[in-house]
Amino acid sequence: MYLAEHAWPDLASYFESKSLAIVPLGSTEQHGPHLPEGTDHLIAEGFAREAAARTGYLCTPTINVGVSAHHRQFPGTMWVDPPAFRDYVESFSRNLAYHGIDRIVYVNAHGGNVEHLREVGRRLHEDGVAFAVEWMWNESIPELVDEVFEQNGPHGGPKETALIQHLAGDLVHDERLEDARDGGLRDIETAETTKFGSRTFYDAIDNSDNGVFGDQTDATPQKGERLFEAASDQLVELCSWLAGQDIDDLLPASHV
Amino acid sequence: MYLAEHAWPDLASYFESKSLAIVPLGSTEQHGPHLPEGTDHLIAEGFAREAAARTGYLCTPTINVGVSAHHRQFPGTMWVDPPAFRDYVESFSRNLAYHGIDRIVYVNAHGGNVEHLREVGRRLHEDGVAFAVEWMWNESIPELVDEVFEQNGPHGGPKETALIQHLAGDLVHDERLEDARDGGLRDIETAETTKFGSRTFYDAIDNSDNGVFGDQTDATPQKGERLFEAASDQLVELCSWLAGQDIDDLLPASHV
Amino acid sequence: MYLAEHAWPDLASYFESKSLAIVPLGSTEQHGPHLPEGTDHLIAEGFAREAAARTGYLCTPTINVGVSAHHRQFPGTMWVDPPAFRDYVESFSRNLAYHGIDRIVYVNAHGGNVEHLREVGRRLHEDGVAFAVEWMWNESIPELVDEVFEQNGPHGGPKETALIQHLAGDLVHDERLEDARDGGLRDIETAETTKFGSRTFYDAIDNSDNGVFGDQTDATPQKGERLFEAASDQLVELCSWLAGQDIDDLLPASHV
Amino acid sequence: MYLAEHAWPDLASYFESKSLAIVPLGSTEQHGPHLPEGTDHLIAEGFAREAAARTGYLCTPTINVGVSAHHRQFPGTMWVDPPAFRDYVESFSRNLAYHGIDRIVYVNAHGGNVEHLREVGRRLHEDGVAFAVEWMWNESIPELVDEVFEQNGPHGGPKETALIQHLAGDLVHDERLEDARDGGLRDIETAETTKFGSRTFYDAIDNSDNGVFGDQTDATPQKGERLFEAASDQLVELCSWLAGQDIDDLLPASHV
Amino acid sequence: MYLAEHAWPDLASYFESKSLAIVPLGSTEQHGPHLPEGTDHLIAEGFAREAAARTGYLCTPTINVGVSAHHRQFPGTMWVDPPAFRDYVESFSRNLAYHGIDRIVYVNAHGGNVEHLREVGRRLHEDGVAFAVEWMWNESIPELVDEVFEQNGPHGGPKETALIQHLAGDLVHDERLEDARDGGLRDIETAETTKFGSRTFYDAIDNSDNGVFGDQTDATPQKGERLFEAASDQLVELCSWLAGQDIDDLLPASHV
Amino acid sequence: MYLAEHAWPDLASYFESKSLAIVPLGSTEQHGPHLPEGTDHLIAEGFAREAAARTGYLCTPTINVGVSAHHRQFPGTMWVDPPAFRDYVESFSRNLAYHGIDRIVYVNAHGGNVEHLREVGRRLHEDGVAFAVEWMWNESIPELVDEVFEQNGPHGGPKETALIQHLAGDLVHDERLEDARDGGLRDIETAETTKFGSRTFYDAIDNSDNGVFGDQTDATPQKGERLFEAASDQLVELCSWLAGQDIDDLLPASHV
Repeated sequence: MYLAEHAWPDLASYFESKSLAIVPLGSTEQHGPHLPEGTDHLIAEGFAREAAARTGYLCTPTINVGVSAHHRQFPGTMWVDPPAFRDYVESFSRNLAYHGIDRIVYVNAHGGNVEHLREVGRRLHEDGVAFAVEWMWNESIPELVDEVFEQNGPHGGPKETALIQHLAGDLVHDERLEDARDGGLRDIETAETTKFGSRTFYDAIDNSDNGVFGDQTDATPQKGERLFEAASDQLVELCSWLAGQDIDDLLPASHV
Repeated sequence: MYLAEHAWPDLASYFESKSLAIVPLGSTEQHGPHLPEGTDHLIAEGFAREAAARTGYLCTPTINVGVSAHHRQFPGTMWVDPPAFRDYVESFSRNLAYHGIDRIVYVNAHGGNVEHLREVGRRLHEDGVAFAVEWMWNESIPELVDEVFEQNGPHGGPKETALIQHLAGDLVHDERLEDARDGGLRDIETAETTKFGSRTFYDAIDNSDNGVFGDQTDATPQKGERLFEAASDQLVELCSWLAGQDIDDLLPASHV
Repeated sequence: MYLAEHAWPDLASYFESKSLAIVPLGSTEQHGPHLPEGTDHLIAEGFAREAAARTGYLCTPTINVGVSAHHRQFPGTMWVDPPAFRDYVESFSRNLAYHGIDRIVYVNAHGGNVEHLREVGRRLHEDGVAFAVEWMWNESIPELVDEVFEQNGPHGGPKETALIQHLAGDLVHDERLEDARDGGLRDIETAETTKFGSRTFYDAIDNSDNGVFGDQTDATPQKGERLFEAASDQLVELCSWLAGQDIDDLLPASHV
Repeated sequence: MYLAEHAWPDLASYFESKSLAIVPLGSTEQHGPHLPEGTDHLIAEGFAREAAARTGYLCTPTINVGVSAHHRQFPGTMWVDPPAFRDYVESFSRNLAYHGIDRIVYVNAHGGNVEHLREVGRRLHEDGVAFAVEWMWNESIPELVDEVFEQNGPHGGPKETALIQHLAGDLVHDERLEDARDGGLRDIETAETTKFGSRTFYDAIDNSDNGVFGDQTDATPQKGERLFEAASDQLVELCSWLAGQDIDDLLPASHV
Repeated sequence: MYLAEHAWPDLASYFESKSLAIVPLGSTEQHGPHLPEGTDHLIAEGFAREAAARTGYLCTPTINVGVSAHHRQFPGTMWVDPPAFRDYVESFSRNLAYHGIDRIVYVNAHGGNVEHLREVGRRLHEDGVAFAVEWMWNESIPELVDEVFEQNGPHGGPKETALIQHLAGDLVHDERLEDARDGGLRDIETAETTKFGSRTFYDAIDNSDNGVFGDQTDATPQKGERLFEAASDQLVELCSWLAGQDIDDLLPASHV
Repeated sequence: MYLAEHAWPDLASYFESKSLAIVPLGSTEQHGPHLPEGTDHLIAEGFAREAAARTGYLCTPTINVGVSAHHRQFPGTMWVDPPAFRDYVESFSRNLAYHGIDRIVYVNAHGGNVEHLREVGRRLHEDGVAFAVEWMWNESIPELVDEVFEQNGPHGGPKETALIQHLAGDLVHDERLEDARDGGLRDIETAETTKFGSRTFYDAIDNSDNGVFGDQTDATPQKGERLFEAASDQLVELCSWLAGQDIDDLLPASHV
């Protein structure tokens, strides 16, 4: 059930019987020469709507711009600073609690948002407002991702390429996949992203000339569909699991 | 040109030749028994994409949730608190300036956002970052709106109904238009929204039982189309005017 | 009853029987070549003290400097940034609640403060601390203002001139009224303050060379007195109305 | 020269030739059964206007409510929280710098404001915006104060009583001076306000039942006048000294 | 009992029977040519651990860097801005309350922290979270300090020198004591640190070329030990007194 | 070179020739029944001082309390909220830049601090203030850690136990190592810390009854020494590498 498409009387019954909401969050940032900048929010929205359609849980509108300053050297990358992002998401989430929501699934498709969503989730948890979890599709099916691709790439690689080929194929420049691979960093392992145990870079451009990683030529819409279906299954299970928990088990444990 | 659909190399040329961006902003909030809660962001997005398509100017993704606490008593209304909203929009806008944007049109379809966008615009202006203007479609064609409808209603009325009938007709419950009118406040003039010169209410529910105003039965898709075309013309003109200004004329005047 | 003039034992009885306070707020900013920069706070203080004298309600000291950055190009204009202004007024107001005040009338004479006072009022309302309303004298008697002057001017015009002639005539440079009119913008309608529905200026100087609007030569102390008496009547009525409300009717409505 | 009483063209010449401003700040808080709650802002305003009149330096409007939470148990005490107070004063001060002011005298008559004004002054100093100093009348003539009264009292005592008798005698309840003394704490030395080197109280009421200290019956308008003249002399000297400094000597020293 | 050295099961019993914690705070800042920059946090830690050892009360780890911007011109001075310092200490203190602590002694050895600790203490007090007091060793034995030294110096003088000679003698450059005295300001009284009642400096360097004050040659380890013992006695007494208070007497008094 | 132990003239030469500083940060939080709550800051301090001793680089005092709310259910755990922690560290770091430091190694021994230090590092990086990297000892020698222990445990496990046995053996309750293992969670893999790709816990107590993980009986001081030496080597290399970089290579890359 997509919140934005319904009138309030039709939403009223939802809140009477359910207390879970799905919130898609992504980013708008460079994804190499072959993918649209909206890649992450398109993916997040894709999964969130799918899970809502399958389960009947409520899906909110998407937060399209996230924490992406590390991609800013590439034209078009948009971002908000972390404190502004956290406060926006927190306020956004607290309003859901006003209507009775006490558990939230952040369907997130951008690594740069992860820690910030957990920090917001912790605020909500400590205050007893809601139990919010952050979910990224690739974290839910790591074996399959590894099986399907040789070089995943952490950003703009074949796994994201395949998903967009599946979800919005028109937006992929298939003719640039080789360029994407050759102009970027094919094997993240070869980059010295850490030195003596310390991460010594701040921006994507420090490791990749065109901003992306992995072997994009390995992507196909079929692989994208397979990943989408598999991860959607996981998301549906997560929603069911979360909805089935006793609220007391989700609130903070008491002092020893 | 919709930013989210393009890859960074294709956006690079835009920033080299243009310095204007269109940013759609709306809300997700109750719009009566007949309209979807996404009404305002759908309208904002509709106008912003249309103007971008006609002019070639860059349109960013939409900010879907705004300052709507005054509608919170109705199920599903989402909102962020004003400081969080302002900081999010400010940070969002400043990143555009990093790429060379120095003029922004906030295509806004929610009255509750107006003052906050102006405050953000003022921060950007005083800092010399960008010249941002706030635009609402109905403010651009007031005579036409008055001509077309007898009771506009400031929220969820026939003018918004007609626009959604035109833009996303499937989402309108046409069978509830009479209910919308009869269960709400038909004539805003009859409500004592101010007393002795002071606005004495805080929430929509204080004036309307179902959250909407005006005579919704007066709406038709044809009227919606007419309004959409007319206001789009205005928005296109605004973009052209703004793009044509000398940046020095847009920056703050110097001290007397 | 003016709070600052009384000792605490004499105020104790007020709080035992009454729960309304009047708070005057203005600005200190350029008002053209003919009016003192304190015009707005003098007017606010004038009305607030008058209403307090007539009704016995408590009037606090005046907040003399408000949100006036849009007048900063003219020498002497003072201002505080919006977040600082809102937080100051909010903290100021919450302390009144500690003593039992649960309704507040912000007697405001500066347009630039309006939205900020409403935002503060909303915070107090949502928290159930107090019901605060913003009141501007000219909004309470719009027909009379229109009747008395041909060109009101939104700032530094004949209506403010007449009021200061009445309240503090010594501070008006009557010999400069023609200069004020001729060096400023006589008819606000002729200024292109909006373009295609969008407000496209940020500072007063963008529309008026000397910072003021309207035909100041139309002002007389007699007109000022008439306006003052008429608007004071309205303010007294507002206080009575507000004091007479049941507190439950002033607190936020519950969820539908 | 009192800023609020002049029109901008008359202020323009001031800023061309001078760069010092006098800013009065006080509080609105209980001052015992005999003094008005506005005591501190009346005193601050009295000194600031006097110094401005004698020297020609610019005096701004008064900030009437300060940091007074430690008096809140007494009816009518108003206050703003320290962060809001500091930010308001800082923003207020920075605007003066926009017009060319680079040195400010905070004429303060409330002990609770002292540290906050110094913190604001430090911000302005470190940023190279302005050199602001905090001044309290009694600190400028400590020997005279000691000579004139046996028990000064740090708050609401004879020295403040005498000053208000001189500046606004109508507001003093002379018939309650004995009550003030007997119901409060006559000799601050006898109170155990510190224990083992630590200040162990937070509120005035912890040390005085009626909120005041010292022997109020020792106050007379003549003493008040004498103190006022003597301290005004000091303030005038301070302004002259400050105005005569080279700005380079007022800015932060460079690194060793 | 030093919190950092114990495992949680051993701390559990403390919180069951006691509700007082000792928190040492200092600074890391220049202390002249003869003393280490850690002087203030070494002293704070010395006293806090001693009192904890004598009484059995819990001592937390030390906050080593405080509000010291006024010493920044000298190499190595570290500092945090006041708002960050206050928020850190406040958050640090509130967590103690979660475990049952309702009274805190801030053992502070840096004058620049005093007002900030009081402000934090006030926040905790007003919220009813805890009663926190600020304690500085020299304030607890003023007569003895005056008796032992001719020229105390407010910073880096003989009293701090003697204490470090006693607590960490290896860190004192005894051979530079004369240099310290001769290159600094021997007699603070001779400096014009205030003018006409106003403090007219912001940085230590404005008054002392090498950053210190007083006659350092007057210091000996024996004097240091005597001071340390005497002030430790006071701190122990303070802890006992505070622990013995009824919590109701420590919470804010109610409204008159 | 430990900053706190030196006088400013002796530090001056450091800043003239070097621009790197080492900042130890840890936490004070439960580490099971066998380890002291200061474990993390003891470890951080141990490594930082060792590296400073070996290389001559400057080491600052330790920040002893970090982001540890997820351990709060256990007695004695201290923490500061993330925004306060970040702002404190940021302010702390910026002051170093004032003295000429443009590269910082945060020697961190608490996982809960990692993301916050990176966020602070990013702020410093984007502003061009300094290049700060976060370093954790176990991340620098992952293979060795895996080799030495069968069950590392992410918190309070054998690797932290061994290090404290080496660095501060007196503080370890060796007699409780079996209890630590049996009362906690031996094998983190067996805990369902994530569900369907989402991390579904917020507090340590959700996964371990006594707050710790791994097999503590596997720890020995000899292993601790071996790990300490190996990781210290890495830290020394990191400092050398960082010091050897051209500052231009450390500042943000320019826009594509």
